Amino acid sequence: MQKLYIIKIGGNLIDDEKSLNDFLIQFAGIDAPKILVHGGGKLANTLAEKLDVPQQMIDGRRITDKATLDIVTMVYAGNINKNIVARLQHLGCNAIGFSGADGNVIQASKRQHPSIDFGFVGDIDKNSINQELIVNMINLGLVPVFSAITHDKMGNLFNTNADTIAGTIAQSLSEKWDTELLFCFDKNGVLENVEDDHSTLQTINKEEFLQLKSEGKLHKGILPKLHNAFLAKENGVKKVFLINENKLSAQILQGNEGTEICL
Amino acid sequence: MQKLYIIKIGGNLIDDEKSLNDFLIQFAGIDAPKILVHGGGKLANTLAEKLDVPQQMIDGRRITDKATLDIVTMVYAGNINKNIVARLQHLGCNAIGFSGADGNVIQASKRQHPSIDFGFVGDIDKNSINQELIVNMINLGLVPVFSAITHDKMGNLFNTNADTIAGTIAQSLSEKWDTELLFCFDKNGVLENVEDDHSTLQTINKEEFLQLKSEGKLHKGILPKLHNAFLAKENGVKKVFLINENKLSAQILQGNEGTEICL
Repeated sequence: MQKLYIIKIGGNLIDDEKSLNDFLIQFAGIDAPKILVHGGGKLANTLAEKLDVPQQMIDGRRITDKATLDIVTMVYAGNINKNIVARLQHLGCNAIGFSGADGNVIQASKRQHPSIDFGFVGDIDKNSINQELIVNMINLGLVPVFSAITHDKMGNLFNTNADTIAGTIAQSLSEKWDTELLFCFDKNGVLENVEDDHSTLQTINKEEFLQLKSEGKLHKGILPKLHNAFLAKENGVKKVFLINENKLSAQILQGNEGTEICL
Repeated sequence: MQKLYIIKIGGNLIDDEKSLNDFLIQFAGIDAPKILVHGGGKLANTLAEKLDVPQQMIDGRRITDKATLDIVTMVYAGNINKNIVARLQHLGCNAIGFSGADGNVIQASKRQHPSIDFGFVGDIDKNSINQELIVNMINLGLVPVFSAITHDKMGNLFNTNADTIAGTIAQSLSEKWDTELLFCFDKNGVLENVEDDHSTLQTINKEEFLQLKSEGKLHKGILPKLHNAFLAKENGVKKVFLINENKLSAQILQGNEGTEICL
């Protein structure tokens, strides 16, 4: 099978003009089929503040009322997605932006929770992904760029976690490609000691992950990445890494950056 | 050649929830290849006001500084485009949203003017359109939905008139399809007397247009539509009409609504 990279970037990177440019140059340089999934960054919070739309977070998840949905749709699927696509086009990478509604590429269902109403938050699984459409896009030489907006095919848009989108797309496409899923962030990988950026684990298995988690040794922000990373690895994604966003080119060339997820 | 509809809707329709839904039901019902191009509506102005970004118009064209570009990108390519796509998907129409940057589908150049700097405003012509990409999308059974955002392949996004985008796409695709370009708006067509909605001209040729224009008998808002309509007709688009947005289904069935553009 041919190799396909699914690469996730987060908010910190998007908020920093120079870092984002440096990253996109690395991404554009990958000489293989590839997909980019991007998170949101601080822009949505800034806009919500300016528009006096109060933001409520529960366990790191944004409660998405209608006003907040409009904001994240504007920021994620509009401003951030189109600016990334325009820059990639400038770098000679034939990018095409997607929300989950476009071509019905990601169909979510409203999050059900016994006590909390998360509002317009969409949950997805492997069957949510329109594999055929993504295959068609890649076969046309296009490079899909996904924002973290999905829909329910009932006319509603949803806010969905970008780590989850990256992991779920990778699971679906593993049936067609030899997939490598890379979660890029500002750390060198999973750190044994959160205070020490040189304590990167070269590999981590589920048992080690649960051990570190139960000992409270993991940074809170890394938990959804690791959760989605293990889910992807357990569901057919060939290789899964957490790497530093500055090391993308090195990872593509040598394949031993950051922390590799093992079963 | 097979028939292809290129249909343009404007801001008034987008601002009215019920009218937009009624229109999209008609659009989804068209049993032929089709493309939708949408304008902006008042949302961009409302957002600019809330964000204290002053808006400057010269001859009905928005001067687009960086802050205004961010706003129109968020509103047009984000909120409006994705909501229209999600609603069409609900109606069983396999819509896919585009800005001009996506797949390099519309490459514009910054407007040059001897005395006015329009800012991030992009001009386009027939050669700006990535015909091959649109052909590929339609052949995949997808229905492209264009927002009025373009790019220059140098990493910059631009604001481009939606009537111009519709007319220019129609010109380009006339080489492949039997094209019909429909400008939908809230009037019944070109009115001989702007005060009388029953004075619709069944046809209008260039001479008649220039005559009415010089006599000041045309509503200001109709001029860019008519300009783009004649340009399209003169450049190979088979049929061009200005019709009432409520009459789309009737036009598709009978083909004699509103005002037909003649050479």
